[in-house]
Amino acid sequence: MKKLSIGIDLGGTNVRFGLVDNNGKIVRQEMLSVGNSRDHASIIFLLSEGVRKLRTQITDNRSPITGVGVGAPGIVDSKNGIILRSPHYPLWHNFPLKRELSKALNVPVSVDNDANLIAAGEAWKGAGKKFKNFIMLTLGTGIGGGIIIDKKVFHGDSGFAGEIGHMVIDFNGEICDCGGRGCWENYVSIDGLKWMLKTSAAPNKEELLAATPKKLFEMAKDGDTSAHAAWKKFGAYLGAGIASLINVTGMFSYVIGGGIANAWELFINETNKELARRTYKESVERTVIKRAELGDSAGILGAASSIVRRK
Amino acid sequence: MKKLSIGIDLGGTNVRFGLVDNNGKIVRQEMLSVGNSRDHASIIFLLSEGVRKLRTQITDNRSPITGVGVGAPGIVDSKNGIILRSPHYPLWHNFPLKRELSKALNVPVSVDNDANLIAAGEAWKGAGKKFKNFIMLTLGTGIGGGIIIDKKVFHGDSGFAGEIGHMVIDFNGEICDCGGRGCWENYVSIDGLKWMLKTSAAPNKEELLAATPKKLFEMAKDGDTSAHAAWKKFGAYLGAGIASLINVTGMFSYVIGGGIANAWELFINETNKELARRTYKESVERTVIKRAELGDSAGILGAASSIVRRK
Repeated sequence: MKKLSIGIDLGGTNVRFGLVDNNGKIVRQEMLSVGNSRDHASIIFLLSEGVRKLRTQITDNRSPITGVGVGAPGIVDSKNGIILRSPHYPLWHNFPLKRELSKALNVPVSVDNDANLIAAGEAWKGAGKKFKNFIMLTLGTGIGGGIIIDKKVFHGDSGFAGEIGHMVIDFNGEICDCGGRGCWENYVSIDGLKWMLKTSAAPNKEELLAATPKKLFEMAKDGDTSAHAAWKKFGAYLGAGIASLINVTGMFSYVIGGGIANAWELFINETNKELARRTYKESVERTVIKRAELGDSAGILGAASSIVRRK
Repeated sequence: MKKLSIGIDLGGTNVRFGLVDNNGKIVRQEMLSVGNSRDHASIIFLLSEGVRKLRTQITDNRSPITGVGVGAPGIVDSKNGIILRSPHYPLWHNFPLKRELSKALNVPVSVDNDANLIAAGEAWKGAGKKFKNFIMLTLGTGIGGGIIIDKKVFHGDSGFAGEIGHMVIDFNGEICDCGGRGCWENYVSIDGLKWMLKTSAAPNKEELLAATPKKLFEMAKDGDTSAHAAWKKFGAYLGAGIASLINVTGMFSYVIGGGIANAWELFINETNKELARRTYKESVERTVIKRAELGDSAGILGAASSIVRRK
């Protein structure tokens, strides 16, 4: 009998639900939008609704779901399943999601940071499958980080490990949302790309600043030297941060995903060059940087894996 | 019957040897200087000589030593006991110390990076005794780092973890010996302190630059505002780097040792302030920074612990 569990990727706009078997196959998927009611009760209602929809699609009556895993944005106390703080959703502060959802659903629930579960998903079925240890970077509006040690998410003392976007990369650098300055994600993100352009001497600066990352990618490929230079600088900052991670953790395997990772060919050479400058050759020789393989499914699979692999 | 083992702290100038019982008491100590012959055979001879001296002092004939642990500077493949690279001692590159020393002594030998074993020593009998996880910083000519997870040294993939002095803290910063620039230890070290002074507008800059860290400590305490400012800036860079470590690892306990940590009262407030600026309040609340307790004994105890605690 196949064991089934449900993985949920709780975003600020949409929630993705997946019914996942114990081989890591997503059997069914649902998506619901969060809407305007973001209080605890509304979220629990929404999550229960998605779970109910998937449950009704289980044709084999002998297979009850073994549990529900949820990935949530922000600082998550994964041990107790509490969202301590979700920077963009103040209503979710100190949200005991695990307790409330398991009460509503009457099945085991586990809750973790979304970036951690993306890493867990890639570890289970994606680019990290063959690595015992690796660090996952999800590039987008910030840098989502997940650290996998011995094939499991490393949580640190209270579940906050992997906030790698807030490594300091420039002591006197740009002001960050977190209150610090010169955080890695001020450079290696969509906003970071804008910063590269803003501080450049590009003649077509206005046009470049109005472009999406996808458009910037196309412009660079079409020969726009300023767009090209911005991606190279982005790559250099990415490399410097990976060098820091290598030096601190002695971990040599990196998996990079997220939308802007699609510009891979425009930044990865510079990333490799920069990290070679900033770490020992013994480390460089051992370093492997791979692209993520699972896209949006990673979070669902990772969330499900926290239930499935517990068995 | 008490089990005895020997811990060796192999430095570039001196080698410290300690006969350690399984409660972590150093029963006897020896020190030998390295001298001018630094080739593999000479080092093996020297280490064997120190071990022989300690062995002859074991009065209880029924207690043979259970093994010898060695802490060595540089990048150590601890699994295989090979010094891959010791930046200041090129003759020690690719030195299979474990194999050669265990052949010479006919006892089990383990080899690890010196900063890792200082951390292990503090974990066993010092400031880290009550921590399950912590990061040890040894401040001096650079920053020695050791990461303790679940009471054991975390080695990463090949034993290189803990090269925390080479986290990038200023992307365009000072050139570092490692080939990178703006490494953390370019600021948080004796040279870093000099840099703070060099880039300051101190009227008595020449005098300050000629001073030892100890003298700078005294000058600051005696009211020299420039010396005081340098220690504060040193503290701020220390705090920024600890914030990075907190954000990456989610680990909240830090133990700081090394000579310049003696100026504690002059920099620690600034360290705490700066790290509070650069990490989440949920992390700040949980963070504990302690001074190391074992001084020079930490390395010997840590080296011995890699033998004793294996039993």
